Amino acid sequence: MNTRSRDIRLRVTVSPDVPIGPGKADLLQGIRETGSIAAAGRRMGMSYKRAWYLVETLNGHFGTPMVEAVKGGRAGGGARLTPLGEDVLDAFREMEALAERAIMPTLRRLRRRLPSS
Amino acid sequence: MNTRSRDIRLRVTVSPDVPIGPGKADLLQGIRETGSIAAAGRRMGMSYKRAWYLVETLNGHFGTPMVEAVKGGRAGGGARLTPLGEDVLDAFREMEALAERAIMPTLRRLRRRLPSS
Repeated sequence: MNTRSRDIRLRVTVSPDVPIGPGKADLLQGIRETGSIAAAGRRMGMSYKRAWYLVETLNGHFGTPMVEAVKGGRAGGGARLTPLGEDVLDAFREMEALAERAIMPTLRRLRRRLPSS
Repeated sequence: MNTRSRDIRLRVTVSPDVPIGPGKADLLQGIRETGSIAAAGRRMGMSYKRAWYLVETLNGHFGTPMVEAVKGGRAGGGARLTPLGEDVLDAFREMEALAERAIMPTLRRLRRRLPSS
């Protein structure tokens, strides 16, 4: 997940009025990896209520949901990303990496010039 | 200033525990352009107290200030950026532009695939 320390935090206006930032991305990734909205929220230190609220927000953005319920199975049901959710998450991670790579030379130059505190 | 609508919002960890994002950058730019902390805050819809608090935060980051008082002059005193403040602001704006340029192809591809809502 987002355990590595990031030099940047990126928020992207994916579509008018639809911002995707690290919070929503980490929640989508948590759902992908745990198969559960509650578990995804928990590992981010997020309340169950907040995690559900964010999922509802994500699902309302485009009319087409990004997260869907999975009935049955070993764990007795859970959640998973829809193809749209997978697509948005993958694109966001790609944009984070591209942005970070693009800014690093400038950031390194700036850091070298900063007063040592 | 930040009147254009941005596709991205970037926050950069300039140095450990020193994040610079659009709020601080816009305040620095406002001070550069208006010569006044109060006026810079006002045009961002920020209270005088909040603007001063942010300037104190910025000035505490590196031991060396980013904003300094200007005594006298036509306007009876005001504020301006120090060379460090100019440097951090310029680097941040450069990083915003670099990041935006780097992610745009991916963002455009994603937008084309999104369901029309």
